[in-house]
Amino acid sequence: MIKVGETASLTKKFSESDVRTFADISGDHNPIHIDPEFAASTRFERPIVHGMLTAGMISAVLGMQLPGPGCIYLKQELNFRAPVYFGDTITAKVIVIKTREDKPIITLETSCTNQDGTTVIDGEAILMVPK
Amino acid sequence: MIKVGETASLTKKFSESDVRTFADISGDHNPIHIDPEFAASTRFERPIVHGMLTAGMISAVLGMQLPGPGCIYLKQELNFRAPVYFGDTITAKVIVIKTREDKPIITLETSCTNQDGTTVIDGEAILMVPK
Repeated sequence: MIKVGETASLTKKFSESDVRTFADISGDHNPIHIDPEFAASTRFERPIVHGMLTAGMISAVLGMQLPGPGCIYLKQELNFRAPVYFGDTITAKVIVIKTREDKPIITLETSCTNQDGTTVIDGEAILMVPK
Repeated sequence: MIKVGETASLTKKFSESDVRTFADISGDHNPIHIDPEFAASTRFERPIVHGMLTAGMISAVLGMQLPGPGCIYLKQELNFRAPVYFGDTITAKVIVIKTREDKPIITLETSCTNQDGTTVIDGEAILMVPK
């Protein structure tokens, strides 16, 4: 039985190679991720990691740890708060904030922070939990 | 000037190799994506593509086409409506549903559908648009 307050996390460092690979498999070749010259002309100044690649770590924590394999992802809200740069070490954390008595559905607060403690993504997830 | 009703889309087929690569770069080795035997024991019956990899196509359309390079991703809501299987051909589509006069911020309806026309993801995105 999953309870409010349960938490899990995962930490990973993103490389330029991860970003180039994600561009290839997702089709997202936005120059902000792969063209240093273009990136230099933006407020971010340097290429940034795709938000959906960083968000993949939230999915990883949910699917592998809490609630773990067999859960069904119903909804994810992602607020992109700050850029993730190549070489940043990101920690994805999830906390159960709501459970239901009538249905096997839980809500979690989900966030990613960088090595400086800056929140880069936050939001909530809703999942169906295996019995 | 971006107007309500403007639309853009992108189509891509996902392979087993894409999914295994995404598992490696995101850290999401949930067996539902990579273990056919485990997947057979679930309601999905076969391995499914990571939701965040499919959602990467939405980011691709936004970042490459509408509003295009230089836009800043503020928020994405993802409702996972149906599974995506290896070999499925997914079309991501975005439609501008709201613009603001006071700030360079737009809201888009975002969705991914499979080759049968089934909606696999829907939701909304909010972006800041380059001037």
